[in-house]
Amino acid sequence: MYEMGVVYRNIQRVDRAIALRLGAFGAATIHEAMGRTGLMQPCMRPIYPGARVSGTAVTVLLHPGDNWMLHVAAEQIQEGDVVVAALTSECSDGYFGDLLATSFKARGALGLVIEAGVRDVAVLSEMRFPVWSKAISAKGTVKATLGSVNIPVVCAGALVTPGDVVVADDDGVVVVPASWAQKTLDGASAREAAEGAKRAQLASGVLGLDMYNMREPLRKAGLKYIE
Amino acid sequence: MYEMGVVYRNIQRVDRAIALRLGAFGAATIHEAMGRTGLMQPCMRPIYPGARVSGTAVTVLLHPGDNWMLHVAAEQIQEGDVVVAALTSECSDGYFGDLLATSFKARGALGLVIEAGVRDVAVLSEMRFPVWSKAISAKGTVKATLGSVNIPVVCAGALVTPGDVVVADDDGVVVVPASWAQKTLDGASAREAAEGAKRAQLASGVLGLDMYNMREPLRKAGLKYIE
Amino acid sequence: MYEMGVVYRNIQRVDRAIALRLGAFGAATIHEAMGRTGLMQPCMRPIYPGARVSGTAVTVLLHPGDNWMLHVAAEQIQEGDVVVAALTSECSDGYFGDLLATSFKARGALGLVIEAGVRDVAVLSEMRFPVWSKAISAKGTVKATLGSVNIPVVCAGALVTPGDVVVADDDGVVVVPASWAQKTLDGASAREAAEGAKRAQLASGVLGLDMYNMREPLRKAGLKYIE
Amino acid sequence: MYEMGVVYRNIQRVDRAIALRLGAFGAATIHEAMGRTGLMQPCMRPIYPGARVSGTAVTVLLHPGDNWMLHVAAEQIQEGDVVVAALTSECSDGYFGDLLATSFKARGALGLVIEAGVRDVAVLSEMRFPVWSKAISAKGTVKATLGSVNIPVVCAGALVTPGDVVVADDDGVVVVPASWAQKTLDGASAREAAEGAKRAQLASGVLGLDMYNMREPLRKAGLKYIE
Amino acid sequence: MYEMGVVYRNIQRVDRAIALRLGAFGAATIHEAMGRTGLMQPCMRPIYPGARVSGTAVTVLLHPGDNWMLHVAAEQIQEGDVVVAALTSECSDGYFGDLLATSFKARGALGLVIEAGVRDVAVLSEMRFPVWSKAISAKGTVKATLGSVNIPVVCAGALVTPGDVVVADDDGVVVVPASWAQKTLDGASAREAAEGAKRAQLASGVLGLDMYNMREPLRKAGLKYIE
Amino acid sequence: MYEMGVVYRNIQRVDRAIALRLGAFGAATIHEAMGRTGLMQPCMRPIYPGARVSGTAVTVLLHPGDNWMLHVAAEQIQEGDVVVAALTSECSDGYFGDLLATSFKARGALGLVIEAGVRDVAVLSEMRFPVWSKAISAKGTVKATLGSVNIPVVCAGALVTPGDVVVADDDGVVVVPASWAQKTLDGASAREAAEGAKRAQLASGVLGLDMYNMREPLRKAGLKYIE
Repeated sequence: MYEMGVVYRNIQRVDRAIALRLGAFGAATIHEAMGRTGLMQPCMRPIYPGARVSGTAVTVLLHPGDNWMLHVAAEQIQEGDVVVAALTSECSDGYFGDLLATSFKARGALGLVIEAGVRDVAVLSEMRFPVWSKAISAKGTVKATLGSVNIPVVCAGALVTPGDVVVADDDGVVVVPASWAQKTLDGASAREAAEGAKRAQLASGVLGLDMYNMREPLRKAGLKYIE
Repeated sequence: MYEMGVVYRNIQRVDRAIALRLGAFGAATIHEAMGRTGLMQPCMRPIYPGARVSGTAVTVLLHPGDNWMLHVAAEQIQEGDVVVAALTSECSDGYFGDLLATSFKARGALGLVIEAGVRDVAVLSEMRFPVWSKAISAKGTVKATLGSVNIPVVCAGALVTPGDVVVADDDGVVVVPASWAQKTLDGASAREAAEGAKRAQLASGVLGLDMYNMREPLRKAGLKYIE
Repeated sequence: MYEMGVVYRNIQRVDRAIALRLGAFGAATIHEAMGRTGLMQPCMRPIYPGARVSGTAVTVLLHPGDNWMLHVAAEQIQEGDVVVAALTSECSDGYFGDLLATSFKARGALGLVIEAGVRDVAVLSEMRFPVWSKAISAKGTVKATLGSVNIPVVCAGALVTPGDVVVADDDGVVVVPASWAQKTLDGASAREAAEGAKRAQLASGVLGLDMYNMREPLRKAGLKYIE
Repeated sequence: MYEMGVVYRNIQRVDRAIALRLGAFGAATIHEAMGRTGLMQPCMRPIYPGARVSGTAVTVLLHPGDNWMLHVAAEQIQEGDVVVAALTSECSDGYFGDLLATSFKARGALGLVIEAGVRDVAVLSEMRFPVWSKAISAKGTVKATLGSVNIPVVCAGALVTPGDVVVADDDGVVVVPASWAQKTLDGASAREAAEGAKRAQLASGVLGLDMYNMREPLRKAGLKYIE
Repeated sequence: MYEMGVVYRNIQRVDRAIALRLGAFGAATIHEAMGRTGLMQPCMRPIYPGARVSGTAVTVLLHPGDNWMLHVAAEQIQEGDVVVAALTSECSDGYFGDLLATSFKARGALGLVIEAGVRDVAVLSEMRFPVWSKAISAKGTVKATLGSVNIPVVCAGALVTPGDVVVADDDGVVVVPASWAQKTLDGASAREAAEGAKRAQLASGVLGLDMYNMREPLRKAGLKYIE
Repeated sequence: MYEMGVVYRNIQRVDRAIALRLGAFGAATIHEAMGRTGLMQPCMRPIYPGARVSGTAVTVLLHPGDNWMLHVAAEQIQEGDVVVAALTSECSDGYFGDLLATSFKARGALGLVIEAGVRDVAVLSEMRFPVWSKAISAKGTVKATLGSVNIPVVCAGALVTPGDVVVADDDGVVVVPASWAQKTLDGASAREAAEGAKRAQLASGVLGLDMYNMREPLRKAGLKYIE
């Protein structure tokens, strides 16, 4: 159901300040604040430990073994964007390396999320250009077939609409649709506010069983303790 | 980005006659007529050879190990529907067996597409109730957590909006959005009309190289024949 | 934690009549009657559709690429046994073919469950000697290293103690420990008795929502219907 | 290390009669007669049960998502050939369907072995055109990038030189280099001659332990029987 | 074959000093000292390089997408324990994060081994709370269904009885049953004592061929050197 | 098609200086300079970040679960070699650890590439002995069956002839045949010379679209920009 061979120039980006504030919470908290939804599959891994990003999505649809549209996407990048690259079928080739990273960075991109492979990962890591990918592979690609830029895409199981917020860290990649951004921010703030007190209690030896009042529901569910 | 705990009762289904006509072409032709798009991932396999279906999508979102919402979905089925079940994370459990198939069939469902496992496959095969799934597993599920029915879902990499046409056969599962149905039908008809003549030529020994005029582009691309 | 290089000659087999009666219910029903437990992983698939077996386990532990102990196991087979072969690490080689099947059958074996590969599957299918395996592979094995026979083994995620009942069909493989056999039989009988009436109701169009009284718990959980 | 963009027109095929005689033994026996070598990986599965082929290899190297070179390969097919298609990186797309099968058959091809996906499998099965592949997928491909025809390729882990014999059945795919053909034939004949007597013995209840004189080596290796 | 809905309060732990001494040898040496057995599958990977643990097992059985029983398990932890979490079917969800880690640590747990996913890995790594898991995923879980605590479980292919010693490092996870602990310690000590001298010899250029006297057995097996 | 039980003592190694110069370019550049060929599959990963090697291949063929031939291979190592170990079927066992690494290093080996598992990775990393493998596993192996040393092998999808150059880094492993070494060196030099200027342009904000003159071919292919 993808429209092929098109580039949408004007997309509605979530406000950058909101994207940054969402990013501060990290992928797990944002995912919880969204009602446990919005995550990409866990095959999407950062190329170096500690990679973190939050920004607005510029999307691109690629064909197996063909990275032509990444060059087309580069022109559509604005300061604060994260490029999200989906594929029409599974491929582990190395679509992206240090030259494209240099270009993306110069255009203002904060990172890349790609449901395929990347290469030059030693250089990308030194550049601290964060990438989440399914594979690392030196395998090069051709430039022969049109995909699209800035259409809604499914990337690693998640629907990404151009302009959505993408939050990624060591725990994975989560997508926040524009219309969910503010309430997700509120939910994440509330969640995090509560966590500090919980952590202190748990650190002091209080059990989740008591803190979350689980003993009664467990008993009702039939849990039996055997001496 | 899924709305949780909701059931949309009124969905706009593609006209049933169109769904049937799309189905007559099979998944591969429909996929080509859509510009080579719309397919689910090839991990989605029919439980018996020769399974075929085309109908309108009733969608359901399930949690790992929990098939509660399939019962909720049953009530929303109308004659000619195909249930499409997506998951919030990967699971191979047997969400669906002969009792649910009996219920779905009684409500008018023509088949099931589920990004998880199914069981009682011997009985389902005898019933000729076609199912496409990622796994076959006797593992049972619980009924404890709300998902949703008739929201847009991502199933095996494809976005499915309730009411879309689903065409599935031995080659896989393809989704035709409502707005694409007519032009896809036209494209598939044109494509198939051309195939008969091509098949006859190829059967007589004519080469695709000549029939598709590939020799010149191959030469230009640099192909060398070595005696 | 495996004892290596030993063969236990005397094992306590579940009564054969009980094994047969358990088998009549099929893997899914037995698994449910055991409290949804006892299953091997769904990677264990029958080599032909419609394969079914129930019998008492003779276990064997094999090393990667080495089928020596299957010959040792053959001698321990009694009428009504199913051989269950576990591995010390993952291997897809073809450990078992038509010669071993001829021998196993002559000794009274009803089938094989092996967490590895098998070969000669066309002949095994003609012989109707049922096998559940992770792979089909022509790759041969050596006979060089000792494993064990009739020790407790972990096969495809399930603990199998010699003499346990193994029930397998198109839905997978389930293991019933000796001490669970009678209550599992009772539970499966009760479960199946209830299924006939349920099937009839569902076939008449009654919904699981009503038959299982799910509407109230769904409402309490917060399910919302949207017109 | 692949030479790209070339088609070798003249290849040295193993004598067709030898190819047929090798095929009569099946993949497992041929593999054993070659000293347990020559097999492709077990991910290569036939599209229908009972598929069998033996013929001489016409090889083709393909890029991900691009089946252009299959059309180039068609012209190089001679009566009795089996096309062996390797890929430069992993891809599950449907490279081959009923039109190409019609063409290949008209040119004399007996079957296809492809380290990727195929489609139209219902039609291919009806045509009894045997195919071994890694995947079944309706996903179409482009025709944009040159690979090669009749160069040595690595397909599913096996080196295939044009003209080699390919023997495939339900157990998998084995490749016999031209220089190994005669001795493999001799070895397979000897092996099969011995199997009849062995099968009869095993069927009568004689154990492999005795027939193969394994008791002494097992004892020396330290095997202990426990009553 | 799992008993569901039970918590065994009193388990027999291997002496803590022995657990520590076993841990000093590392997973590979302990596995060898046990006769090359006791390992979990290699899909179990530490969340940070250099993670090491040895302790006594508190076991927990979880359902897909449900981490309720981890809270129940927390109460059963004693100083020096390692929690081992098995699943009733495959799931990659993030069952465990920094709050549970805080609680487990406060109760005296030294680490976690879980056949599923974990999250908050950046924080867990900073805390130096070692975890071995199959996946890293931000995906949250529910608290709805009873499993069990301190029953024998199969985790990543290994049987773990409560109180067993668990030794884990960069090479993987090995389980030492209580009854094997002392002899494994002796075997590991002997093995390590011999390794120092071997390492020195090999470092000086002596070949394993000579040090292990392999030349004669290789010659007997038929090895041929070709100039 | 592997010759079994043989060791070729005299192999033709590519000149060491050339191997070192090739290594300076890294796997991705070398692969591109070879016309995008010669790579092993991306499942081959270094055991520590930043691992790099280039050297001449000593090859070894191993059976599943058996590392005997690695000891035979050790004797054939010369200063500047990289050992490349292929398997007759898939296996993740830990074939190689710190003792063998000590021996290999003492003989002059620069690293190991193995289509299986390795162990003692913490020690290997401290030794800075680089290894590329498919798995990390503490699982030990036996020494029972002959493979071969210095025959051409297929390792992770790539054909490796003894004496070829192996270049490996964080992006993967590439094999340069002796006859391709000089032209690959020339191609890589030319490629790298051009990259500096390109990088500077891209860093200044010039787009690949303009630098590579892609706008016209994209327009011809039908790309449409939508405001």
